Amino acid sequence: MPHPKAINLIESGNQIPKAWTPHVAGKVNDALVKVAKFDGDFDWHSHEAEDEAFLVLRGKIAIDFRDGSVELGPNDFITIPAGVEHRPRALGDTALVALFEPETTLNTGTATTSDKTVSDLPSLYEL
Amino acid sequence: MPHPKAINLIESGNQIPKAWTPHVAGKVNDALVKVAKFDGDFDWHSHEAEDEAFLVLRGKIAIDFRDGSVELGPNDFITIPAGVEHRPRALGDTALVALFEPETTLNTGTATTSDKTVSDLPSLYEL
Repeated sequence: MPHPKAINLIESGNQIPKAWTPHVAGKVNDALVKVAKFDGDFDWHSHEAEDEAFLVLRGKIAIDFRDGSVELGPNDFITIPAGVEHRPRALGDTALVALFEPETTLNTGTATTSDKTVSDLPSLYEL
Repeated sequence: MPHPKAINLIESGNQIPKAWTPHVAGKVNDALVKVAKFDGDFDWHSHEAEDEAFLVLRGKIAIDFRDGSVELGPNDFITIPAGVEHRPRALGDTALVALFEPETTLNTGTATTSDKTVSDLPSLYEL
């Protein structure tokens, strides 16, 4: 097997055509690394069994919790523990965010009736 | 439980006093997110049972494999599959790198006699 290759998360992520559609950038053990464009507000949701982590690559986002909000810029990292309700949203222009979570995590979690649900994730390598 | 907080991986990582000493920045399910300064060459090693992923935050690094090398700059991401021998090294000045791997992963892997082995990881939150 030839050695693994690198992928630039910003250059690849810039080509994602649609906001709130996570694209797979890689796999580490049982976790996927995904990249998504954030634009406007997402839906309130939680993930019942899985933590989810965000690392901002470009732009600014906020994550609303029921008891307050956290603002994040480039290189800010946060883990949302399983079961914690949250609403991600972009601040200003489109932001680019890396997500770390299990392969099985649905982007809208408990908000299963959302029109933003993406159950068959595309790959950054296809762009 | 109050909502989670964010941590800036570059600002926190800049305060790490010593190269090749991974500091814990967060936990996502059974994986830890660690930040390390790379300076000079690390040891050849592999991790028998665990994939390890690198995301460059600042500076440039190379990862040598037995069949070639990969150079990575900011926002370049790569997964080293379990069992694959590799040697990370900094290119030029000190680089800052985020690592994604299980809590149990030893930095020097199979190179257990290395003087760079760190078995009790400090935390970025302590800096």
